[in-house]
Amino acid sequence: MSAPIDFYFDFSSPYGYLASGKIEALAAKHGRGVDWHPILLGVVFKKTGAVPLTEIPLKGDYARRDMARSAKFHGIESFRMPSTFPIATQAPARIVLWLKNRDPVLAIAVAHALYRGFFRDDIDISNPDTATAIAAGCGADAAAARAAIDDPAVKDALKSETAQAIAAGVFGSPFIVVDGEPFWGVDHLDQVDRWLATGGW
Amino acid sequence: MSAPIDFYFDFSSPYGYLASGKIEALAAKHGRGVDWHPILLGVVFKKTGAVPLTEIPLKGDYARRDMARSAKFHGIESFRMPSTFPIATQAPARIVLWLKNRDPVLAIAVAHALYRGFFRDDIDISNPDTATAIAAGCGADAAAARAAIDDPAVKDALKSETAQAIAAGVFGSPFIVVDGEPFWGVDHLDQVDRWLATGGW
Repeated sequence: MSAPIDFYFDFSSPYGYLASGKIEALAAKHGRGVDWHPILLGVVFKKTGAVPLTEIPLKGDYARRDMARSAKFHGIESFRMPSTFPIATQAPARIVLWLKNRDPVLAIAVAHALYRGFFRDDIDISNPDTATAIAAGCGADAAAARAAIDDPAVKDALKSETAQAIAAGVFGSPFIVVDGEPFWGVDHLDQVDRWLATGGW
Repeated sequence: MSAPIDFYFDFSSPYGYLASGKIEALAAKHGRGVDWHPILLGVVFKKTGAVPLTEIPLKGDYARRDMARSAKFHGIESFRMPSTFPIATQAPARIVLWLKNRDPVLAIAVAHALYRGFFRDDIDISNPDTATAIAAGCGADAAAARAAIDDPAVKDALKSETAQAIAAGVFGSPFIVVDGEPFWGVDHLDQVDRWLATGGW
């Protein structure tokens, strides 16, 4: 199996959620794994001067419409915009990063559960106790997960992950890198698919 | 035949150029025509606070790479980034708007020729005489086309077209509206295709 493809995402990113449900099957189709990178888009946006999509005049109204429409287009019927949006995503990101080093398979299951919690069930995963409860529901150790959120080493790991993402050119979510080639957005999954099949064009 | 679909574009928009080569066949496949709306993205950006894509940190580098890659992905091999970019697009936009009322078929041919001039042949179509020469090459009256660029009535028409686009929610290029449903970007042509086929989902 070749090297995994890199999947960068923020837990508050609707398009990241849509891509998260498709990326593993897409990679597996081409014999590839996925390296999941939770990042903080707010830190990235400070670098690019961007603001959250839904807060931009005209574009914000379109984005809300496009998010719901794109969810259906991609066959993810259960998507709904959370009642509080955007949210801070340190808690879910730190849990997933902490788990990655201990149980990478469980880390991905937890990432899916956290994303579903926010974009399907309207659960506020910015709350550390809530994010912990979701991780525990997947089989993670609740006390250790809750402690990880406040662990300086895990905090540093998330800062480092986000800094490395920026260094790799990441400026949005979802962001996918295949053998050094960058792709931004769930609407680029068709290009990712062809790139994986052909090695470029 | 149902009402035409609306195609908004700026002559300095690479993704607009890519979409311009596909939009007519896509509409025709569903028995629809295309109403071409040249607009000034600079005026739109003042409304949304946006800046040209290629000038944004990180995103700019990605955009240049994605433009060339997306051109090939969409089968438009001849695309090349112009040596001067972005450019002011009043001259080409005014010529096309002026022609639309006189010879709508010729107006579309001229729009294609202007776009190809800029994104295939690296010709600076911001120059009024150059834009006029391209239009004349398609069969437009050269003196009348050149005069139209400086005609206050045509200038007002372009202002009005851009203002109406903003009122319709347009914030980027290409921007396609199908029976009131807005789609942004060449990477949404697949959604436009399905929307035209199904009337929505």
